Amino acid sequence: MKQSLHIIKVGGNILDDESKLNLFLEAFAAIKGNKILVHGGGKLATLMAEKLNIPQKMVEGRRITDAETLKIATMVYAGYINKTIVAKLNALDNPAIGISGADAGSIMAHKRIHEEIDFGFVGDIDFVNTNIFQTMLENQLSIVVAPITQDKKGQLLNTNADTIAQEIAKSLSNIFETTLIYAFEKKGVLLDIDDDKILVPAITNEIFKQLKSEGKIFAGMIPKIENALEATGAGVKTVIIGDALDLVSLVGGNSGTSISS
Amino acid sequence: MKQSLHIIKVGGNILDDESKLNLFLEAFAAIKGNKILVHGGGKLATLMAEKLNIPQKMVEGRRITDAETLKIATMVYAGYINKTIVAKLNALDNPAIGISGADAGSIMAHKRIHEEIDFGFVGDIDFVNTNIFQTMLENQLSIVVAPITQDKKGQLLNTNADTIAQEIAKSLSNIFETTLIYAFEKKGVLLDIDDDKILVPAITNEIFKQLKSEGKIFAGMIPKIENALEATGAGVKTVIIGDALDLVSLVGGNSGTSISS
Repeated sequence: MKQSLHIIKVGGNILDDESKLNLFLEAFAAIKGNKILVHGGGKLATLMAEKLNIPQKMVEGRRITDAETLKIATMVYAGYINKTIVAKLNALDNPAIGISGADAGSIMAHKRIHEEIDFGFVGDIDFVNTNIFQTMLENQLSIVVAPITQDKKGQLLNTNADTIAQEIAKSLSNIFETTLIYAFEKKGVLLDIDDDKILVPAITNEIFKQLKSEGKIFAGMIPKIENALEATGAGVKTVIIGDALDLVSLVGGNSGTSISS
Repeated sequence: MKQSLHIIKVGGNILDDESKLNLFLEAFAAIKGNKILVHGGGKLATLMAEKLNIPQKMVEGRRITDAETLKIATMVYAGYINKTIVAKLNALDNPAIGISGADAGSIMAHKRIHEEIDFGFVGDIDFVNTNIFQTMLENQLSIVVAPITQDKKGQLLNTNADTIAQEIAKSLSNIFETTLIYAFEKKGVLLDIDDDKILVPAITNEIFKQLKSEGKIFAGMIPKIENALEATGAGVKTVIIGDALDLVSLVGGNSGTSISS
């Protein structure tokens, strides 16, 4: 029988608020067994760019990662945020190691190819090196992953943390019974973005089609659900979307939206 | 018979000059067997502090690490420099993982205690977790170490990279036949700081006493040599001090100053 593995993506305001982050990490430390935490960047990278007078470039509403922005992303994500989380987990008696996708070639990517927009140093994932994840998990280490990858030539690349969590989950689902949790600031998939009470508890391919055809799903949520369904189609047992501050009950399957194809 | 291990500390101008760094990393990648690279910070942290208008605090000529300076050190050392080196090594077909002393509790420290000066968030090392280093080396990974540690309470601490290299070398010398190399911008221990030709090829306790009593050693070199002699007294096979751009011949024992008690 496969061992269980929880992969949790956390982002947004949890990373910007130390007391919330501490509560979240206490809940993470309480999860038994194999665990991977993938974090985004929070507002610190944007603040740092502002302080350093590095303009954030946008093309057609999409953020561009130029060389200076990549440097800041690498410093903030793989440096400050990653090591802050790791040190707090170790202090909670949850041995943890922080890596980026560059470390041990764990997540190889290529610079995004796009016909019209040059996204700069943004990486799309080619390959997850499952060996390195498995080795660390077997050594009773939780793994904290920063959303930076590299290409074959040694170029660091800024990579979407949701996608990293999804690709790690898909790759490791061959080895582990994998649950992927997207922990954010909402209670889950909501029928009304402003009303936490109208939560969709479970989504399947069928339910998703129906909700979408009825126009009941908030547009920003659609790609997240599509990715979740793709992940469960590719071997991930369940994807759960819910409130980062409810992590214990998300893991227990008692809150959030549970997605499986 | 013990396997051999090379631990190389690199700092100074090599880190600030990409073409020199590339040459150095090519030489590092060519070293066979178990390898650990400990890096310092170079000028980037100072530049970043200047750009962010964070004054560098000095007390009695000693640098103080306040909270903002620690944040920059963590970003620059454990983030940008560490991941840049790791990505370049991976691209040179030298699988490498970057860690700080916080990762997997690999180097535990405490905030420096000093009767007169509050150094701020500066760490003095208590303990090196040899298991984690051994596991990674056994998995054919070179380890790239950033000079950040943590205490038991999860506080990150800025820690001298020379000392980190020395403490790792001492701890791992139980398991490996360990050579510790301090790679910097001089040819080794020089009798005249401005003349590369007057190199001391080998130093023992006896030679060191004599050179010191004759006032022939540059003052800044004395603690480095004392630490090297202490390391070889504690089990490290040899300590070599020399030019980072001569790494191949330093490893071969053909240049630099070789120190052993």
